[in-house]
Amino acid sequence: MSQDTMQLVIVRHGESEWNKLNLFTGWTDVDLTDTGRAEAAAGGRALKAEGFDFDVCYTSQLKRAIHTLNIILAELDREWLPVIKSWKLNERHYGALQGLNKADAAAEHGNEQVKIWRRSFDVQPPALEAGDERDPHTQEMYRDIPSDELPYTECLKDCIARAWPYFEDNILPEMRAGKRVLIAAHGNSLRSLVMKFEKLTPEEILEVNIPTGVPCVYTFDKNMNVLDKRYIGDADAIAAKIDAVANQGKAK
Amino acid sequence: MSQDTMQLVIVRHGESEWNKLNLFTGWTDVDLTDTGRAEAAAGGRALKAEGFDFDVCYTSQLKRAIHTLNIILAELDREWLPVIKSWKLNERHYGALQGLNKADAAAEHGNEQVKIWRRSFDVQPPALEAGDERDPHTQEMYRDIPSDELPYTECLKDCIARAWPYFEDNILPEMRAGKRVLIAAHGNSLRSLVMKFEKLTPEEILEVNIPTGVPCVYTFDKNMNVLDKRYIGDADAIAAKIDAVANQGKAK
Repeated sequence: MSQDTMQLVIVRHGESEWNKLNLFTGWTDVDLTDTGRAEAAAGGRALKAEGFDFDVCYTSQLKRAIHTLNIILAELDREWLPVIKSWKLNERHYGALQGLNKADAAAEHGNEQVKIWRRSFDVQPPALEAGDERDPHTQEMYRDIPSDELPYTECLKDCIARAWPYFEDNILPEMRAGKRVLIAAHGNSLRSLVMKFEKLTPEEILEVNIPTGVPCVYTFDKNMNVLDKRYIGDADAIAAKIDAVANQGKAK
Repeated sequence: MSQDTMQLVIVRHGESEWNKLNLFTGWTDVDLTDTGRAEAAAGGRALKAEGFDFDVCYTSQLKRAIHTLNIILAELDREWLPVIKSWKLNERHYGALQGLNKADAAAEHGNEQVKIWRRSFDVQPPALEAGDERDPHTQEMYRDIPSDELPYTECLKDCIARAWPYFEDNILPEMRAGKRVLIAAHGNSLRSLVMKFEKLTPEEILEVNIPTGVPCVYTFDKNMNVLDKRYIGDADAIAAKIDAVANQGKAK
């Protein structure tokens, strides 16, 4: 990496227990499956094979992302790196859809409605009722977060509105200071960053499918223009993963 | 916990690969054994059973302590808590003894000499040669630490000289601010803190054996006087663990 460029690696967590069940997960704090742990380990080995190293790591407050990062750090023998966890990098909150089966939702409402709910830019899913057991205001994990910052539901626009300022205020300064940053997060919090990185339109970001457990390396110039983007790992396996993610919301 | 008291939980990592082999470990970054992982999980379950919760966690840069903490946080469903890693909480550096078998060292030099090396207050073990593969100045893990702070060997007094100021400057202010702190670290970095907490003499601290994987809860008044100290878990099992640690350095 030259002094005139900045490098960032992002990685989406591997398969979770609810990915496997095809349920809308959002902020539900489910763990990785064995497959998800294997995906994370493969991602870590791929980074190690290409000689990647890091100075600081960021992740969400959700264990599927935290465990993905821990597994990658173990593969890299970098458990000792600083890790900063923030709810601002959480998955998009899916509101009252959390816990619903995606295939059932698609059969009832149609593939297109489900795709809108999954990928719409500014249409929020139905909001949770205050006090619902899924309401983050009732959960220990968010007890230190100001109440008015916590959502009852989020569209991608809402997710960007928290994830992007967090990136600009906390992560970008580290990159500008020459730090090599690794972010382990979620489909939509990473899509929030990718949309800004690549200056995509709302329509374009809907078509972006980030594969699970595959590290993606961005190289930026000092003005945050993308000079290069590439996935680390086997090209065919990555293409298959992107396809699998794109098909997740379709009725079976 | 009343507003007039402060609470701190410390826990020593469970059995490591080199504990099992009876080797002087120091800063060698060996992992936990299955037994060590089970000890950590038992410690986490004991904390959970008594309703303990935390606001911030500290650990060393060594994976046996980091993994112990991660396992405890998983048992508590508190993976999302902030974790701060510092080499100041590392085990005492054992200098050129690192990698030697404790029983062989005891057979050659006698139990008393080994006990002095293991527990002396101000007698350093033989220092590493600069550039030795065990020299922290050569290791990636310490690349961001000022060179003149890194040791070639340490006695307990040296360990205290880094661990206690770290505690006073970084951890104690959090406790004073009302934060519930959990520290997962090592026999001698924890002994460094315990000596200061309990105002022990060098002779007294030599006789203190901290059991592995057993959380120890201190309650302090606002002037850091110890009001209460107790281990969390089964009393007989804890007594057996303390005895096992005391016998580690004796010739077999």
